[in-house]
Amino acid sequence: MRVKDLNISVLLDYYGELLGDRKRDVLGMYYNEDFSLAEISQIIGISRQGVRDVIKKSEADLFFYEEKLGLLRRFSALREEVDRADILCKQNSVPVELSDSIRRITDLLQ
Amino acid sequence: MRVKDLNISVLLDYYGELLGDRKRDVLGMYYNEDFSLAEISQIIGISRQGVRDVIKKSEADLFFYEEKLGLLRRFSALREEVDRADILCKQNSVPVELSDSIRRITDLLQ
Repeated sequence: MRVKDLNISVLLDYYGELLGDRKRDVLGMYYNEDFSLAEISQIIGISRQGVRDVIKKSEADLFFYEEKLGLLRRFSALREEVDRADILCKQNSVPVELSDSIRRITDLLQ
Repeated sequence: MRVKDLNISVLLDYYGELLGDRKRDVLGMYYNEDFSLAEISQIIGISRQGVRDVIKKSEADLFFYEEKLGLLRRFSALREEVDRADILCKQNSVPVELSDSIRRITDLLQ
């Protein structure tokens, strides 16, 4: 899988709810389920070029949302820092309530 | 300020970038700068009813985004838990690296 694909798949997790059903379904089939354009074309009953157009437009939507809201960027930075705090908890003797709290923060970032 | 107003103002912080310039400006004037409908009407040169319509539509947009993405809900839960961790750090003797890490997480949630 290309790096680009992975990013789209992650952006789809963040912003998929803002796309219409068709766009979300097509991108999901293409990026998460690895269907080909021809397969998606058959499934949803539009031309192969139509599928390609939906994918291009949907990708542009996702990049627009990330540019405006930056959720991928913000959550990545948060996860990195929370991972660091989690490791520090494990390396040191800290109250169990604090370890639990860090774990709950990790869960909230999923 | 009514509770409703406060929520709109917070939602505007989260999703304002997704609104067009006019909607964002009008909501900002109404909720953050406490301008009246008549004042906004004069500033942007549309009728008082037009301002009211822009506000109603923009509020609906913000509620739609929150329903779909839940950033207010998610960040509120995160902040609450990070505040708890921060208090536990202050109440107990923990490594300074850990306190620093929690502070950076707090900053990332601003």
